[in-house]
Amino acid sequence: MHMSDKGFVLWFTGLSGSGKSTLSVPVAERLRKAGYRVEILDGDEVRTNLSKGLGFSKEDRDTNIRRIGFVAELLAKNGVVAITAAISPYRDVREEVRGKVTRHGAGFCEVYVSCPIGVLAERDVKGLYKKALAGEVKNFTGVSDPYEAPLTPDVTVASDHDTVEQGIERIIGTLARMRLVPETT
Amino acid sequence: MHMSDKGFVLWFTGLSGSGKSTLSVPVAERLRKAGYRVEILDGDEVRTNLSKGLGFSKEDRDTNIRRIGFVAELLAKNGVVAITAAISPYRDVREEVRGKVTRHGAGFCEVYVSCPIGVLAERDVKGLYKKALAGEVKNFTGVSDPYEAPLTPDVTVASDHDTVEQGIERIIGTLARMRLVPETT
Repeated sequence: MHMSDKGFVLWFTGLSGSGKSTLSVPVAERLRKAGYRVEILDGDEVRTNLSKGLGFSKEDRDTNIRRIGFVAELLAKNGVVAITAAISPYRDVREEVRGKVTRHGAGFCEVYVSCPIGVLAERDVKGLYKKALAGEVKNFTGVSDPYEAPLTPDVTVASDHDTVEQGIERIIGTLARMRLVPETT
Repeated sequence: MHMSDKGFVLWFTGLSGSGKSTLSVPVAERLRKAGYRVEILDGDEVRTNLSKGLGFSKEDRDTNIRRIGFVAELLAKNGVVAITAAISPYRDVREEVRGKVTRHGAGFCEVYVSCPIGVLAERDVKGLYKKALAGEVKNFTGVSDPYEAPLTPDVTVASDHDTVEQGIERIIGTLARMRLVPETT
């Protein structure tokens, strides 16, 4: 059990449908089994609870991400592993959140879940890419709104090539290399 | 150390200047010394980080309180003692938050810090009551905006009669009686 350890923030970023939730849920499960308290801050749930009324302009998206960052930081400084799984498209605000979290001594690991738009449009689980590409959805990240991929993510999972299992192993391996979890996790 | 215990929410409510922060800070300190992880969610700090842009209508105040409640609940379900010190003037939304927190098995203790308006206006640490009573501040709780005192708070501290030390003891005693902390805390 690692209750007395410092918490950290595991920050997923990637386009809609890239696999952020698909990866974050089993990673959370693995960390819970290793004795950590883990909280997943899902993008949609956080919007409902903390950001109702905000839209999808850069300013509003940034505000939403700052709020997720604030809550993740509160959790991490109290020993919890806070996993965030919001698109978080803008580089500057992701870096701002990293700065705030690490300033208080908690760890921060950025996971970039990459996948080409073409593959996402083909999968199109929620049918949103088809609509976005047809111009029917405004401010759709990666189509009609920017997505700034991380330049130096702590770990990248390419969901069009890597299996979920490979992704999980790579993330846990990165956390161990960063000394945020023991090698045996 | 009580790292593995369930967390709980210690919810202060009371007028501006009634003594919520004056009490919450030493109570937090006492609980930290007893081994708890404790986070104080101060009303002003939360407004800055989670509720920028919200005003002081009932709807906006309720939204702000729901957000504080959401964060307090996240902390409490992860073993942290979340202390909130916002005015939280409306009864229905306080009860709504209590319902959500306890639904997930975390404890909830409401502390009513009472003080007559006359005494607060005399103290007037921030000079706000004078302005409010002169009609210069709109939506000032207790003067030009409602404050609904709890009907059945878990504990009441009357800051015009009780000393800070008496208040702390009564709050810790209540937490022990509610079995949220051990008798020895």
